[in-house]
Amino acid sequence: MRAAVLPGYDLDFVVETIPDPMIQHSNDVIVKVGAAGFCRTDIHIWMGQLAELHKAAGVSMPFVCGHETAGWVVEVGPGVTHVSVGDAVLLHPLATCGYCMACRRGDDMHCEDSVFPGIAAQGGFAEYVKTNARAIVPLPEGLTPRDVAPLADAGLTAYRAVRKALPLTTPGTRTVVMGAGGLGHIGIQALRSLSQTDIIVVDRSEQALEHAKIWGADHVVSTKDDGSHVKEIMDLTLGNGADVVLDFIGEHGPQFDAINVLGRHGTDIIAGYGGRLDFDILAQLLTPEATIVGSLVGTYNELVELLALTSRGAVTLTTTEFPLEGINDALSTLNSGSMIGRGMLIP
Amino acid sequence: MRAAVLPGYDLDFVVETIPDPMIQHSNDVIVKVGAAGFCRTDIHIWMGQLAELHKAAGVSMPFVCGHETAGWVVEVGPGVTHVSVGDAVLLHPLATCGYCMACRRGDDMHCEDSVFPGIAAQGGFAEYVKTNARAIVPLPEGLTPRDVAPLADAGLTAYRAVRKALPLTTPGTRTVVMGAGGLGHIGIQALRSLSQTDIIVVDRSEQALEHAKIWGADHVVSTKDDGSHVKEIMDLTLGNGADVVLDFIGEHGPQFDAINVLGRHGTDIIAGYGGRLDFDILAQLLTPEATIVGSLVGTYNELVELLALTSRGAVTLTTTEFPLEGINDALSTLNSGSMIGRGMLIP
Amino acid sequence: MRAAVLPGYDLDFVVETIPDPMIQHSNDVIVKVGAAGFCRTDIHIWMGQLAELHKAAGVSMPFVCGHETAGWVVEVGPGVTHVSVGDAVLLHPLATCGYCMACRRGDDMHCEDSVFPGIAAQGGFAEYVKTNARAIVPLPEGLTPRDVAPLADAGLTAYRAVRKALPLTTPGTRTVVMGAGGLGHIGIQALRSLSQTDIIVVDRSEQALEHAKIWGADHVVSTKDDGSHVKEIMDLTLGNGADVVLDFIGEHGPQFDAINVLGRHGTDIIAGYGGRLDFDILAQLLTPEATIVGSLVGTYNELVELLALTSRGAVTLTTTEFPLEGINDALSTLNSGSMIGRGMLIP
Amino acid sequence: MRAAVLPGYDLDFVVETIPDPMIQHSNDVIVKVGAAGFCRTDIHIWMGQLAELHKAAGVSMPFVCGHETAGWVVEVGPGVTHVSVGDAVLLHPLATCGYCMACRRGDDMHCEDSVFPGIAAQGGFAEYVKTNARAIVPLPEGLTPRDVAPLADAGLTAYRAVRKALPLTTPGTRTVVMGAGGLGHIGIQALRSLSQTDIIVVDRSEQALEHAKIWGADHVVSTKDDGSHVKEIMDLTLGNGADVVLDFIGEHGPQFDAINVLGRHGTDIIAGYGGRLDFDILAQLLTPEATIVGSLVGTYNELVELLALTSRGAVTLTTTEFPLEGINDALSTLNSGSMIGRGMLIP
Repeated sequence: MRAAVLPGYDLDFVVETIPDPMIQHSNDVIVKVGAAGFCRTDIHIWMGQLAELHKAAGVSMPFVCGHETAGWVVEVGPGVTHVSVGDAVLLHPLATCGYCMACRRGDDMHCEDSVFPGIAAQGGFAEYVKTNARAIVPLPEGLTPRDVAPLADAGLTAYRAVRKALPLTTPGTRTVVMGAGGLGHIGIQALRSLSQTDIIVVDRSEQALEHAKIWGADHVVSTKDDGSHVKEIMDLTLGNGADVVLDFIGEHGPQFDAINVLGRHGTDIIAGYGGRLDFDILAQLLTPEATIVGSLVGTYNELVELLALTSRGAVTLTTTEFPLEGINDALSTLNSGSMIGRGMLIP
Repeated sequence: MRAAVLPGYDLDFVVETIPDPMIQHSNDVIVKVGAAGFCRTDIHIWMGQLAELHKAAGVSMPFVCGHETAGWVVEVGPGVTHVSVGDAVLLHPLATCGYCMACRRGDDMHCEDSVFPGIAAQGGFAEYVKTNARAIVPLPEGLTPRDVAPLADAGLTAYRAVRKALPLTTPGTRTVVMGAGGLGHIGIQALRSLSQTDIIVVDRSEQALEHAKIWGADHVVSTKDDGSHVKEIMDLTLGNGADVVLDFIGEHGPQFDAINVLGRHGTDIIAGYGGRLDFDILAQLLTPEATIVGSLVGTYNELVELLALTSRGAVTLTTTEFPLEGINDALSTLNSGSMIGRGMLIP
Repeated sequence: MRAAVLPGYDLDFVVETIPDPMIQHSNDVIVKVGAAGFCRTDIHIWMGQLAELHKAAGVSMPFVCGHETAGWVVEVGPGVTHVSVGDAVLLHPLATCGYCMACRRGDDMHCEDSVFPGIAAQGGFAEYVKTNARAIVPLPEGLTPRDVAPLADAGLTAYRAVRKALPLTTPGTRTVVMGAGGLGHIGIQALRSLSQTDIIVVDRSEQALEHAKIWGADHVVSTKDDGSHVKEIMDLTLGNGADVVLDFIGEHGPQFDAINVLGRHGTDIIAGYGGRLDFDILAQLLTPEATIVGSLVGTYNELVELLALTSRGAVTLTTTEFPLEGINDALSTLNSGSMIGRGMLIP
Repeated sequence: MRAAVLPGYDLDFVVETIPDPMIQHSNDVIVKVGAAGFCRTDIHIWMGQLAELHKAAGVSMPFVCGHETAGWVVEVGPGVTHVSVGDAVLLHPLATCGYCMACRRGDDMHCEDSVFPGIAAQGGFAEYVKTNARAIVPLPEGLTPRDVAPLADAGLTAYRAVRKALPLTTPGTRTVVMGAGGLGHIGIQALRSLSQTDIIVVDRSEQALEHAKIWGADHVVSTKDDGSHVKEIMDLTLGNGADVVLDFIGEHGPQFDAINVLGRHGTDIIAGYGGRLDFDILAQLLTPEATIVGSLVGTYNELVELLALTSRGAVTLTTTEFPLEGINDALSTLNSGSMIGRGMLIP
């Protein structure tokens, strides 16, 4: 099959012919890729930042990235009975075991015996990709692989964070969303369609903030270098602070703003990463009785829910498509900050 | 293998040699039976009350009952990697698929593609029984199949009901337990070890009430034919009624007492069955703002939790053992009401 | 002051002059009535159905009904500091104590020492009404007493039931709403604005069903005398049954349909009343593992949330206004089934 | 009345005669002090660390500390009906308003209009203390002021943290408790009586660890200067890490150990304070999907629950009594680390 392979860290991706994936275990599934989202994590892999993880997982170059994949089932292992050849499907990013206690409580990302295609096994920037039957999410009628591929990771990560927020975002509350980019774009739409909390979106880009209003923001605040946006946010909450912050950035400073704009008994849900966080336990955690919640990708059932939202039109992805050969363009476009919506390879 | 088979409804069980179960699916597991609990449901099967279910499931006579099984793994299918021959195990009563949304949220009893050995497939009153890898619960060190078999159904059903009660049984609350028999015996111990609610146990048998005190009851009330026990219960709650009722009977009247002793915002959790319930919506449901909760067996993870409780000594089973050939004695002993604890066959 | 008084059960209301209410306790508040909703419960009072409750509460004729009141504060007791004369306010229906454990956990309707104006004390069909400071909800800017009065009871009852449903109405679920009348009209709007569950509204009136679509129903089903609507509902759920039923009727049969259209692990939330409910514990409660939840009016904080929803335009009341003298018209209009939206007296 | 007053920061307390407190508001209550716990916060006040808070609250010297008070009601304001002169009572530390949304949801510590005797108003190191009716918790029969005073703050703070942990401490889980001192001493007993989680207690003092075993610890680990206790804790969790950490220290290092011994999807509940916390968002918060929860004192209803636990004998306080004149001894004893249990003044 044709695949966009990474010959080595920091080298251009190359489209070449590699062996097709083959069924090895009874619940393996092979999917013909219809669309594969291009994620910032692919840049991290390209830069070699996951080299250690790769070493531990026995990954060697050339490697096929791509962990946001949708397509059609072309072959299933002998133990697979509920998935059929020809089904249009979205792949939950993790191929889980179904036997550990984490799997059994629906906590897929903490499976004790999983495979992560595109991260620690060959991924979706290719004509075909192998996963297992536990990862297969059938597409609802009316949705095609091109409509949904980036939901598998970016969408799911945003949705899980929103879902953690929902019990707290009752009418009359205020929610600050840090970041109206890849994650925020889905997060804001999901939050809007599932709550009537007052949504304040904070971003550095005026263009993103314009979009945020369309996605459902009640207020938008532009990040300022002098930090004056923190006061602006506080004023929008009438000095009370936010009930919830959804931090889709998690680096470069907004993670500190998040803590600072929380109101009493507020909750800071962090799904973006890259930075560190530090705070005074008495003044910033105990006195306001704050909670800080990490959120990691999402579960299979949450992905089904996100598809239901998409199917109803409550959430719509914005994407820019590239052919498989355009993978290096996708990388440079994303790297330069000029990608409109999510980049997506169409093999 | 030797098995205690039911030749036809209402006929004596017969111990005879039948073919050994065989691995057919990649995740099948065959277990050598160490102990198998004898349940009232086995009497219902014997009487033919599940004939319709049997017809629907394609079950034909002779049939092997037994759905509370523990033993040792003797053979596994080719797709099974986390269970090994020789493991001492308890069997969750349902062999679930691991793929439907119910399984994925840990809601095993609502699996859309399950097999129920002992109810709708050959069960555990035999030397060997077949289930699948999803049903296998490894025994914690120090516990043997004889210590735990009846936990698989009676124990699990009681524990799940208690678990539903726990968020409501905060210190200072009052919990009424209807029934100190098969279910109540585990339920009272579990509730006692996990809460400091004031426990009021109600039963018709003075002997059972004596045991209830040892298991952790704070008060016991003997059921009276004139219904005066309802006032007795209300007096023990200082007229406020119970915060929670755990109804382990669900027939013959206690289900109505349950509703009548509930206090404001009370919750009636029903795990016993056989009867009907009816009430006035305004006076008995809305004005007190009551909740009525059905509880059905339990999940795999709950069974693991119950084993942890047992392993710590917080819950102890009382059993009476019979050889496989004693199955008809087990039936008549249970039927006559003279079984001490749970009857258990040792093949 | 002028008041519409009930001279005796079953007699026409009469507008006459009665003494003004007076501050007696330190936290009393007197409100000039701007609007007062006319509720079916007022008909029950008129018919004498609450005679026993009245006797217990020491209520004597002539009596002033009206428990859905909004207006402006005109006088406060010496202990009241957070409410000021002139404030536009909505009255939570119950004047609670603020000291019992129910009040302290926000569970206002279960206050152990409350007064219920319009039910068990003089109510809002008058120029002035007395309540206490705990019942005072300030109106958000932009809302007047005429916009909100019926939210105090009808709206709040519907909203609390919806709020109990929300954790269960995740995307992809199906919710059946029984009744698109006084409660359903708010309930459907609230549910639509706070979830993306598939909403199936069931009512006997085709006109109500037309409105239900505007309020946010995905599907509507007309109640048939032959009961065929139950199959219609089941078909809309693809045979799975509903995840949640919101029963805003609770009499005349729909309460049984509710149980019958529940899917596995479904929840039946009942806020309408008048009838009885009965079911088979094994087949209808335990096997599907159903939950039946009574819902009673709502809390102060929930009323604040409902006002926030109204303020955002997510919920809009439909009302028909009558002068105080038109109270008997309001009664006959409601009684004849021809009231459009909620009847409301404007003293 | 006689009171132990602080003449100025860093000066010895002096017992002298000051004016009796007087009823000023309709819901004021005056309590004759039976016992008053001496808390580390009293040392912070003595050292002047709350000077700024004092300035903001208009507190001037001489000041009466003491925020853990129990005694008997001697006088009530005209609006108080549910509390009577002579009642034996424990004082919730905060005198709350009962009207703000925080009070109404039972979230007492976040009341928007409260008074904090002993911190920002005259406190309990005196013959009499003034609070309001909302703060009055009646003692259950069999308990006297001397049995319970320190429950008001130290006990309540520990109990609330444990209560936040309980939904997570299911059988089979592992809970690490940092600190077996003032808070831990109550926390361990409460956790033991309400769960069967495997409790691992960590402390620097071997003596405290000996007590911890009696209070219910399953394992104890002594803090080592070389940090090797972290590996010891991890080994006790079989390398999985803890499901929950209760950090009753929050300074001097254990707050970092807490994060480091958390397992996947673990929760770190912090009730001790003094230090800072910092971590890498990706590696320490997102990848394990950790949650960090601040916990602040507790609610009135939680204090009632803690009294119920105490009344049942599930929690027992250890105290050392001093006469009012012994206040400087209490301070030096606590400061030197030689206080056995909680110091308590008996005026």
